[in-house]
Amino acid sequence: MLIVMRDHASQAEIDHVVEHLHEAGAEAHLSQGEVKTVIGVIGDRELIYQLEMDGFPGVTEVIRVLKPYKLISREFQAEDTVVRVKGAVIGGGAFGMIAGPCSVESEAQMLEVAQAVKQAGGTMLRGGAFKPRTSPYAFQGMGLEGLKLLRAAGDSVELPVVTEVLDVRDAETVAEWADVLQVGARNMQNFMLLEELGRMERPVLLKRGLSATIEEVLSSAEYILKGGNRDVILCERGIRTFETYTRNTLDLAAVAALRQLTHLPVIADPSHATGRRELVEPMCRAAIAAGADGLMVEVHPDPQHARCDGPQSLDVPAFTKLMECLRPLVVLEGKRL
Amino acid sequence: MLIVMRDHASQAEIDHVVEHLHEAGAEAHLSQGEVKTVIGVIGDRELIYQLEMDGFPGVTEVIRVLKPYKLISREFQAEDTVVRVKGAVIGGGAFGMIAGPCSVESEAQMLEVAQAVKQAGGTMLRGGAFKPRTSPYAFQGMGLEGLKLLRAAGDSVELPVVTEVLDVRDAETVAEWADVLQVGARNMQNFMLLEELGRMERPVLLKRGLSATIEEVLSSAEYILKGGNRDVILCERGIRTFETYTRNTLDLAAVAALRQLTHLPVIADPSHATGRRELVEPMCRAAIAAGADGLMVEVHPDPQHARCDGPQSLDVPAFTKLMECLRPLVVLEGKRL
Amino acid sequence: MLIVMRDHASQAEIDHVVEHLHEAGAEAHLSQGEVKTVIGVIGDRELIYQLEMDGFPGVTEVIRVLKPYKLISREFQAEDTVVRVKGAVIGGGAFGMIAGPCSVESEAQMLEVAQAVKQAGGTMLRGGAFKPRTSPYAFQGMGLEGLKLLRAAGDSVELPVVTEVLDVRDAETVAEWADVLQVGARNMQNFMLLEELGRMERPVLLKRGLSATIEEVLSSAEYILKGGNRDVILCERGIRTFETYTRNTLDLAAVAALRQLTHLPVIADPSHATGRRELVEPMCRAAIAAGADGLMVEVHPDPQHARCDGPQSLDVPAFTKLMECLRPLVVLEGKRL
Amino acid sequence: MLIVMRDHASQAEIDHVVEHLHEAGAEAHLSQGEVKTVIGVIGDRELIYQLEMDGFPGVTEVIRVLKPYKLISREFQAEDTVVRVKGAVIGGGAFGMIAGPCSVESEAQMLEVAQAVKQAGGTMLRGGAFKPRTSPYAFQGMGLEGLKLLRAAGDSVELPVVTEVLDVRDAETVAEWADVLQVGARNMQNFMLLEELGRMERPVLLKRGLSATIEEVLSSAEYILKGGNRDVILCERGIRTFETYTRNTLDLAAVAALRQLTHLPVIADPSHATGRRELVEPMCRAAIAAGADGLMVEVHPDPQHARCDGPQSLDVPAFTKLMECLRPLVVLEGKRL
Repeated sequence: MLIVMRDHASQAEIDHVVEHLHEAGAEAHLSQGEVKTVIGVIGDRELIYQLEMDGFPGVTEVIRVLKPYKLISREFQAEDTVVRVKGAVIGGGAFGMIAGPCSVESEAQMLEVAQAVKQAGGTMLRGGAFKPRTSPYAFQGMGLEGLKLLRAAGDSVELPVVTEVLDVRDAETVAEWADVLQVGARNMQNFMLLEELGRMERPVLLKRGLSATIEEVLSSAEYILKGGNRDVILCERGIRTFETYTRNTLDLAAVAALRQLTHLPVIADPSHATGRRELVEPMCRAAIAAGADGLMVEVHPDPQHARCDGPQSLDVPAFTKLMECLRPLVVLEGKRL
Repeated sequence: MLIVMRDHASQAEIDHVVEHLHEAGAEAHLSQGEVKTVIGVIGDRELIYQLEMDGFPGVTEVIRVLKPYKLISREFQAEDTVVRVKGAVIGGGAFGMIAGPCSVESEAQMLEVAQAVKQAGGTMLRGGAFKPRTSPYAFQGMGLEGLKLLRAAGDSVELPVVTEVLDVRDAETVAEWADVLQVGARNMQNFMLLEELGRMERPVLLKRGLSATIEEVLSSAEYILKGGNRDVILCERGIRTFETYTRNTLDLAAVAALRQLTHLPVIADPSHATGRRELVEPMCRAAIAAGADGLMVEVHPDPQHARCDGPQSLDVPAFTKLMECLRPLVVLEGKRL
Repeated sequence: MLIVMRDHASQAEIDHVVEHLHEAGAEAHLSQGEVKTVIGVIGDRELIYQLEMDGFPGVTEVIRVLKPYKLISREFQAEDTVVRVKGAVIGGGAFGMIAGPCSVESEAQMLEVAQAVKQAGGTMLRGGAFKPRTSPYAFQGMGLEGLKLLRAAGDSVELPVVTEVLDVRDAETVAEWADVLQVGARNMQNFMLLEELGRMERPVLLKRGLSATIEEVLSSAEYILKGGNRDVILCERGIRTFETYTRNTLDLAAVAALRQLTHLPVIADPSHATGRRELVEPMCRAAIAAGADGLMVEVHPDPQHARCDGPQSLDVPAFTKLMECLRPLVVLEGKRL
Repeated sequence: MLIVMRDHASQAEIDHVVEHLHEAGAEAHLSQGEVKTVIGVIGDRELIYQLEMDGFPGVTEVIRVLKPYKLISREFQAEDTVVRVKGAVIGGGAFGMIAGPCSVESEAQMLEVAQAVKQAGGTMLRGGAFKPRTSPYAFQGMGLEGLKLLRAAGDSVELPVVTEVLDVRDAETVAEWADVLQVGARNMQNFMLLEELGRMERPVLLKRGLSATIEEVLSSAEYILKGGNRDVILCERGIRTFETYTRNTLDLAAVAALRQLTHLPVIADPSHATGRRELVEPMCRAAIAAGADGLMVEVHPDPQHARCDGPQSLDVPAFTKLMECLRPLVVLEGKRL
């Protein structure tokens, strides 16, 4: 931690800060120029993280050099975390392709999609049973019944299933029916939910919040690992910017940066990020080339009648074609699909 | 709803869309130019809101003219909602001043602050017992014990108390001890929590999310009103932008716009928005002049030792001075404090 | 400047950095912990500003503590700069009200507006002759002819006139006809134009760029002052964010912050910022309460036929009413209008 | 254009709008529901683009369906524009690799870089002679002398050279010495400069502004084509968002979208976008996979002593390695490098 004093801070102010640091058990290193004084603070992570020096008289700025996370960092664990769920593997060179509809709508829809995903080479089946919707008047998902249809569809083709947990009170139930628990963008900083999932034994797919920084994504993942659950997959799904042509802005530099900063597998979701079917393929390709360990893509047997996110869903032939076009790229990246 | 077809869409595509609309029970009005065809859709809100036409062949854009909310709108209720909690009133010309520390830290701290807030003319006491923190290593609040200290401090000076509910499972408990339940920015789209609070009888203070649009704030409030609870106070607390000088960007046009769009009281929180003590006073003034029905301000007896948000907290003399300086402005705006 | 070395940087890397600093004539102060080494750099502004240390081996981050400006800062000049132009004054307690149409369209329009602005108590007349338009197919302004109409209208009521310089080659011509030269948001970092205006003797009204930080606004103003021209008025006119309800997000904390950081007068332009007529009045009020030294407002005798920016323009009665409603607030703020 | 009337707009208001449209020579198609009336407007582009209906009584919103550009669109020209400059080709399947230092600093530096770029297979040489710098105290480039060094270096290895035009008054001079004229991000809406370049015969490399939408990039390119110059290369170089880990956010969906919307070649600049050397390679790969027609990369023989942008520059061995790693990807995309 660096404490920058205001120009011409008085000696008394500087001494006051230094004293407080010593009392708290930290070391203070002064760098004093004619105008500026900067105090370097050395000590252990927890201690330093809890120091709140911003309010001290004479202090202009506090710059935190230590990161707010530890367990998820490459420094803590150099080799890639590999998440295994039933037959499927993501991370450490194994490329995961998660596909399925935005919402579970019916048994027929799910069975048809499951078949298509399996045949085209997808490795996990997704489908939303509890849907977070901006408006209380929009379709909110089929709930438990949807979970069961998802499970049955996954079983029918032997694919593990991924679905979102919206409510911390439903975590146990969702874990009964699903193999991977998804935390949606709106819940990325629902710390209660993160802690609950940290105590469970199901892999977690954590989506980046709409306005979450890379550091905040990592800190949220840290909540889960701190609870004991080490199987976390991070997912970049677009951030909110001024651009309106795409629904969100897919931040692929975040994928590359996360791959460098953490050992956890990192995937991308071009369907939600772009909100436009015609951009799904190029963004899937780009994500692979950026180093992603997997993808999440919306597929619907009949996108024009989808109950949500129709404009970004691929139909079955389009998904099959997508898989064919992505394979050589995955291979070129030295990964297995 | 307006459906914009792509240039030179085929007659078959247009017919297909129109047919689907008729089947769904909506009316379709065509506006056909040489190049562009636009279809106006008429029908009731719920019906139209659930139509998902974006995926249809030939459709370029779907523009929703109907809003995703209803109960909270000025069209639905023209006169201001007035929220009354014990002696305190916000809305309809009554100006509310909510003040207190970011976190409850000790009995002495709370009693001292409560006294100061009361004496200076504050109308409610705030204090965080459950704190949402980016890092799992940061101070997370005193929990239930903090709630009790907050309650006791409020009672000691006869001020109603406001505190954040972080976990839907704690809602009942928090409601036992607090008078107003705050939903923090990170939970603005935690729809489960909103629904739970909608079924309760405690007033709710709903903070705008860091990247929430005005329409999304209103939609979240609609979740609460839809459940039956009509006592909702909206709070602008800064949005996340590229600017780093201030912690967030206080969007006062949103305060003015919300006042026009909804009958609910709207307040502002300059402390969190700016993250800088020296900007709290001018932003309080600006918020009042923009038409805010109240303010939320951080006060701490000893800001430099605050366990969170020290740099933006006012000490007691500064808060007292602030209240004096704001009073004439509130009066000029035709409100009562 | 602070140089943060990566964890466990080698002594050779640290020595290399320190040597380079010494060679360049700067002092290096080391703060070495077990893990982190931070090097504080002391020296004069120009020297340090030109040091590019980010590329050195072992360097993780370079934090610039010195600001990229000097002449415009409160440290350099504590008292407010007062800009005087003909009878009009802005700054140092004098409140300026600049009003007029977005574009000059005709002699009749300008004379009518000028009269209205004068009668209602406006202090300067604005009108665009050279218009920056996103599309090459949109109306681009009347050019020199517009300048002359603006001049004549201003003279007819003895108000100084403000207009935008779009092209550095036109600066002299515009200066012949106008009293204050406006630099638009899109040109805030057109450094050639800034330098040219810095060499002239006309006051400059510098608008904040759509995505310019507060520090960048100040740095751009520094370009003008560095050239010798000290009469610069800064104008907050909204930044680009994800919010689409308003055209831009008026950042009033920037107004308050700029007032603290610089001695230059700071005004706000609620018309362009909000793009909505019904938000102009509350945002004018809020800007005054935030400490603005003046306002810029669009007025048009017939907004519905305005050739640009109709939806945000006030008509003459609305402007007259606005002035009446703002006056008591300006007085309360201790300023003169 | 669609004109949305406010709820229950009066018949008089509707008639007024329709009349005005007829007078202006446009057709009006009404879509009238019980609550909402929407008016579709049909007419030619120029006419409609100049209609300003937002200010009319009863009008809530004006939605422009026609785009503000034409010549640059795929509808206007389906096949790719191929830009040829001396031996180099970009577009239509030819992949361009533009490389070189941020700033021209010396003859030796330029000759060394030119050799390296040529040997590694780069197709154009870049180097800044006129540098736009936020602070007036930062290094502003070598100017004309720099241009000559760039030219000589390019000639020594037979590579065409690219450099930025900062000042419209310098356009002729820069065109004398350089083969491609770059418009920097800060000047993307310097319409005077765009018009000037539109009248010249040198290819233009137009960088996206920091907060420019895709539509604005296209509109700026339209300015150049409208002047007669059809050789324009678009460049995505990162937009400004809340994320601070990377300097800007590289928006690769914009690359894919631009490729669909326009026939002009589209390249990406990962060096400026990320500001971090370790992200250059993955982002180059991602850009290629997103469909980019080329790349622009910073290379410096001695990045740690670069006078600007050191932290993102590659040294010669790193650039050589980069080229080797990108080649198979370019081939997989069906392009020639």
